[in-house]
Parts: sequence; C-alpha cells; structure tokens
Amino acid sequence: MTTPALNQLSASQAAALLARREITAEAMVRACLARIDLREGEIHAFAHLDADGAIAQARALDAGPVRGLLHGLPLGVKDLMDSADMPTTYGSAIFAGYRPAFDAAATALCKEAGAVVMGKTVSTEFAYFQPGPTRNPHNTAHTPGGSSSGSAASVADQMLPLALGTQTAGSIIRPASYCGVVGYKPSLGRVPGAGVKSLSPTMDVIGGFGRSVADVGLLGAVLTSDERLAHLSDTKAPRVGWFKSPIWPEADADTQAMWQNAQRTLSTHAASSDDVVEPQDFGDLIPLQKSVMAFEMARALSHERAHFAPRMSERLNALMAEGMAIHGDTHAAGLLQTLAWRARMDGLFDRYDVLITPSATGEAPAGLGATGDPMFCRSWSLLGLPCVHLPIAQSGHGLPIGLQLVGRHGQDHQLLSVAQWVHERLTR
Amino acid sequence: MTTPALNQLSASQAAALLARREITAEAMVRACLARIDLREGEIHAFAHLDADGAIAQARALDAGPVRGLLHGLPLGVKDLMDSADMPTTYGSAIFAGYRPAFDAAATALCKEAGAVVMGKTVSTEFAYFQPGPTRNPHNTAHTPGGSSSGSAASVADQMLPLALGTQTAGSIIRPASYCGVVGYKPSLGRVPGAGVKSLSPTMDVIGGFGRSVADVGLLGAVLTSDERLAHLSDTKAPRVGWFKSPIWPEADADTQAMWQNAQRTLSTHAASSDDVVEPQDFGDLIPLQKSVMAFEMARALSHERAHFAPRMSERLNALMAEGMAIHGDTHAAGLLQTLAWRARMDGLFDRYDVLITPSATGEAPAGLGATGDPMFCRSWSLLGLPCVHLPIAQSGHGLPIGLQLVGRHGQDHQLLSVAQWVHERLTR
Repeated sequence: MTTPALNQLSASQAAALLARREITAEAMVRACLARIDLREGEIHAFAHLDADGAIAQARALDAGPVRGLLHGLPLGVKDLMDSADMPTTYGSAIFAGYRPAFDAAATALCKEAGAVVMGKTVSTEFAYFQPGPTRNPHNTAHTPGGSSSGSAASVADQMLPLALGTQTAGSIIRPASYCGVVGYKPSLGRVPGAGVKSLSPTMDVIGGFGRSVADVGLLGAVLTSDERLAHLSDTKAPRVGWFKSPIWPEADADTQAMWQNAQRTLSTHAASSDDVVEPQDFGDLIPLQKSVMAFEMARALSHERAHFAPRMSERLNALMAEGMAIHGDTHAAGLLQTLAWRARMDGLFDRYDVLITPSATGEAPAGLGATGDPMFCRSWSLLGLPCVHLPIAQSGHGLPIGLQLVGRHGQDHQLLSVAQWVHERLTR
Repeated sequence: MTTPALNQLSASQAAALLARREITAEAMVRACLARIDLREGEIHAFAHLDADGAIAQARALDAGPVRGLLHGLPLGVKDLMDSADMPTTYGSAIFAGYRPAFDAAATALCKEAGAVVMGKTVSTEFAYFQPGPTRNPHNTAHTPGGSSSGSAASVADQMLPLALGTQTAGSIIRPASYCGVVGYKPSLGRVPGAGVKSLSPTMDVIGGFGRSVADVGLLGAVLTSDERLAHLSDTKAPRVGWFKSPIWPEADADTQAMWQNAQRTLSTHAASSDDVVEPQDFGDLIPLQKSVMAFEMARALSHERAHFAPRMSERLNALMAEGMAIHGDTHAAGLLQTLAWRARMDGLFDRYDVLITPSATGEAPAGLGATGDPMFCRSWSLLGLPCVHLPIAQSGHGLPIGLQLVGRHGQDHQLLSVAQWVHERLTR
C-alpha cells in the first residue's frame, strides 16, 4: 500500500495529523500547490492563487501553537467573499482588481481556527448563471456546476481539502453533485454573512465542500461556532423520509436507478424508510423562490444596475429586468408565504430525522456555457433548511451523481450525523 | 404668515414642489446647506459633508426629467452604509478614510429615485453603544440617541428633510424619540441590506427618519419598492392594542402621563382601544435578543476582532468577549425560539391593527457619553416587525417624547396609514 500524497488526504485525516504535528502545515500546503500547479491549467478553479502567501501563513502556523480545528488546512475561498489581502471580483468584470478593506467574517473565523487561505475560487457572475472558466475535473468538457464552481472543482480534484461556498438557489449542492464531493449548506442564519456579497438576504447562506461528511463537519463547526459538528456522534438508525418532490420526472434515469438502489439498501438499516406524502402544493415553492430571489437580487445589485449594466451579462440583465418588474407588495406577500411554509414544513421533522431528495437532475451537463439547473435545491434554499450532498454513484458516462439530505432548521449536528451514517451505508 | 425656508419643509411638501418644478433641487440643497453651515458646528451630525457634490447632483437633476419619488430631496446616509463617492467609516477609527467600491443598495435605490446625497451622518461605533460626536438639537447637553445619531439629529434640526438609518436593537426608534422626529423601521427582509455593514443578520434592518409619517412613507416606498407607502390612504378607525410590556415600570413619569393622555384621546376615536393581555413570558425576549445579537455581532466583526481589537472601544470589546463566549448550539436554539416567537406574536394582529408601546424610557438622557437604553425596542427588533416612532409630547424639561407603533410583518402600508391616523389625532 502506497502512502497517499498529502493533498489526497481528506480534511479530517489531515487535520488530525496536523494537530499532532505529525505533518507540517508547510508540507500540506506544498502538496496542494503541487497539485494545483499540475492541474490548474486544465481546471481553472482559481480566480486568484497566492502561493507565496500560503507558504508564509503555513510557516507561521508551524512555528506557533495549534490554533484551532482547521490548523494548517489549506482552504479555498469563493470569490463572492471579501478578502483584505487578495483581489475580490464577485465573478464580475466590474470589480476586476478590487481590494476590500477586510475579510469576510466567515473567512476570518476560518483563519482564526488555523486555516491557510490559498486563494480565491471562481464564482459565476455575482453567483448567478453566467459561468466562469472552471471545468469539471471528471470530464473537462462538462460544467462543474455553479455558482461555487471553483470551490467544488478544487476539492474534487484534490487541489484543496476544503473550500468555502455560498448558496442562494443551488450554488453549493449542485456543484457538489456535479463534481462528486460532499457539500454542506448550513441552516439559514447560523453563519455570519458579513463581507459576502449580499444577493438575497432571505436565502443567502455560507457553507462549503469537503471529501467526506466529517470534513464538512469540521468546517461547519468553525463557521457556526458549534464544536459538536466536528465530532459527529454515532447515531442510532434514523427515520428516513424519501421526498421525490413534484419535479421528480425531471430526474434522469441514472438518478432514478440510484434512488431505487439507495432506498433498497437503507430500508434494511433505517429505523423507518418511507415515501413522504408531500404537501400537495410543494411545487409552489419553486416559483415563489424564483420571485423572491429575482426581486431581492435586482435590488441588492442596485449600484451595479445603475452604473455598470453594459458590463453585466445578458443573463444577469434579464434577471435585473425581471426582478425590477416585481412590486414590493408582491415581495412582502412572498416573505409571508415563505414564513408560513417554513413553519409548515418544520412539522415534517416530527416524523422524519432526515429527508432524502435529489440534488440535481443528474450528472453534470456537457458544455461550459451554462452551469445546470438548481431546480431540486430552490425550495430548500427558500425554506432555509440545512442540506448535505452525498456523492454515491456514477452515471452511465462515469460522472458523479448523488443524493441530497435535508434536516430540521438548526439541527445541523443531527443532519451531519445522519448524513455520515447514510454515506457509510451507501458507499460500502 | 411668512413662507418657511425650504429646509423647513417636510420631505413630502418639498417633494410635491420639486415634482411640479415649482422649486429647484439646487435651491432646496442650498437651503439645507445654509442650515448645516449655521448649525453643524454645534450639532456634529455629519461624518462627511459633500456640499459641492450635492450642488452638482442637484443641478443635474434640475436639468433633466423628474427621476422618481425623491426627486431633488436632500438625503443623509448613515455612515454604516458603503458609499462609492464618500468615505465610509462605520463609526470606527479602524476605517478612517476607507472608500468602498460601490454604494449600499438602499442608497443606490434612493439616488435612482432622485435623492441628492448630502453626506454621511454620524453612526456610533459599528452601530453599538460607543457614541460619536453628535448632540441633541433640542439640548446639546443631551444625547441624540444612537446608533443612527447623525441621521436623527440632522432631520430634527431641519438640516435635511430625510435621512437613512439602520436598526439592530433600537437604533432608529430610540434616536427618533430622543430627537423628536418620525422614525420608521420596515419589516425585516423588505429592504436590501447589500453594502450595509452586517452586524446581526437575524435583525438588521434599514429604514429612516422624516418629520411626518408621510415623509417616512415616501422614503419607505423607495426602499421597499412598494409605492403604496407613498400614498397613505385614509384608514378607517383602527383597533388599537396598548402594549405596556413587562418593563413598563422603566418608563418615566412623563412617559406614563403621555401614555394616559394618548389612551384617553384615542379611546374616543378608535374602533377599539384595549390593554393587551401580554404573553406572560414576553419579558424573555429581551435576554434572547441580547444573546442573539452578541453572538452574531462578535462573529460579524471577526476580521476587526482579529486585527484591530486595540482600536475598538471597551464597550465593543466587552460585547465581543460576551458574544464569543456563547456557543453555536445556544445560538441555533435562540434562532428556533425567535422563529417560534415570530409565529406566536403574529396571532396578536388578528385582534389589533396596531400595537402601541413606549419607544424609550423617556426623554433623551443628559450627557454625551452614552446613547440611552434600547430596552423598549429590542423585542420588536428580534421579532422583525415594522415599527414607527411618533413624537407627540414634551417632557418636563422640554425634550421630545413619543410613542412606538408596531404593525404586522409585511403590512408596512397598513402600519404607516394607521400611524398617520394616530399622529393626526394625538398632535391636533
């Protein structure tokens, strides 16, 4: 058995070695830089790479005490997040070379816990649908998904063990699915949003990517200040609700086959495993999410709309027009409907510890001109519930596919514990 | 009868004249600048004043078509909000001279509607309790309140007809009360927060100040894209609920006397006028608000905490320590309690069109070393409900006092309409 290169270690494996000083942060960083050097020309995961800065950070960490849960772990930061020491573009040409005065709070928390920020990872334009240059590591002719394209791709390609992402519609779960990594979107409100480009305050959430559930738990513990997430307990067999959702017919044949296999496997282990009789009108959540998001994004980008519309993509300008045509009273009504839906769906978790639902319609679509459809994520984003993507299978073309697990609001520890339980049983 | 100087006009009066081109934006701006020139040396409402820029903006507006609801109206912008064309300090020495790349979305919406941004108004340090230099126009030995100190003082002193503020605990309603102007905190989620220093996403709201309910309606219409707020309808006699709250004994004698007078007056006009039998445990909301706010502010300011703690006030460093000592699982539980409280309090509005409650313990306290206590605002901030402060009386020392009106979530139009109805009857 050959020893894996350090960049191949999962975040939690590496964190344990780093905490025990069995490997140095500098060696870890150099292993990742070597992989980036080898692959970045093909993958284009980075909007900005700071190799020298990362090595300097790593050396400083090696010379001092163990800082925290992320001590010495290389981290990618989505370029939707402000950086005091790196350019920040939000994926838009408008902000080329912009240098904010401070780090996003989520980044600062990770640095405080000992993470080494390696660079800024590619975001689509203001986290909407206009792609950046990133390619899918499993097949570079396919999209990595978006909007957290570079974060998902860099973790999938073993350039980095961990990366930060954000989600408003499906920007963590979808690229995690397309790239075959674990993605984690925390409960709405648990992670500080300061210094992250605000798009839709009703839904914006910061989370991230790793190569195991334990990895995203480690990151999540730092982002939420909830150390329990770094120590996922053995959970008793969970009550699983299989939630196809009204758009189930959009899931492709590979996904439907994976679903049936997973259902068969888990039914023999879970405390209960039932098809969820959906709220009949659950399908209403998708247009509601689209309306709230269009209204809020068009207003959040008011300065850009007023001054830089010619430098925004057609896709984004179309969203701006759509959003500005929605009246404030419609938005207010949408917020009320959202609150009512949140209260109503909460009741489902009296009966199920976790809902399992598709993450995406299937494998990453071919082509780099679009980032795929977040339709299976929109409702959960509007509901503000914590979600995890688990990669568990391959499509007929050898691309990764997987499932989305959804938990109760605020119960991220339980969700991640159940996700680890599920992942172990579906990937044996 | 002498014609009032233009700076003495209310925003809605001036807006009508400007829209009909009966006065020019330049004349309006110059009248405000003259007042500022006269008074700013005493009041210190501005962190930055851009007289030349304001005149240039006004001339451009006079030379073009009528832009929108705020055409030609001078506007103050709280220095917690990013400005592309002015320094932005968030009330902290850490950010002296900082110049962000874009305007806060709320500012951009106001400019789009024709407002002339005159300058940045003083905020307390990161909108917490360490005061800026602003004095109360009614008695310069007294605090104007905070954190939107400069905005409230400039509108009270007739330097500006309108100014933007933000509230996390009591930062709009309290200074409005101390300075004797109308303050409006919209429903949580209705105004874009992009480009405003994020402190506590669970509560942060942008609103503003004017000298009548119609004034803040005009501003609110632009901030929420809900034009109905600019046209407050005659409302039928409302069902009024008098909500003393468990901290009622903290209200001083002047406030309690004002309360009784107001109750007597309104009881003869309102459809119903009843003391609200409070939820017995309503008092729990204050410690809950403090805990959620301390947790979230300590994390929102993570970059500042890590790099600039020596340049933060003792008060703020104490909040950082308090917040960092709160665990993420406690915060998650606090978010769930908040959601439950929001749902529960919503039911009260089946019986009442508006709740009336104190805005503050009484008149602006003497001294400039503190900004007063937001105790009567904290619960409503956590609940995310729309609030209006109405100035209606004077304390024994001749300082303004008034009442807070609270509406149902999302029903800002109804709240403002009822507030106008109430204000007319209490100030006749």
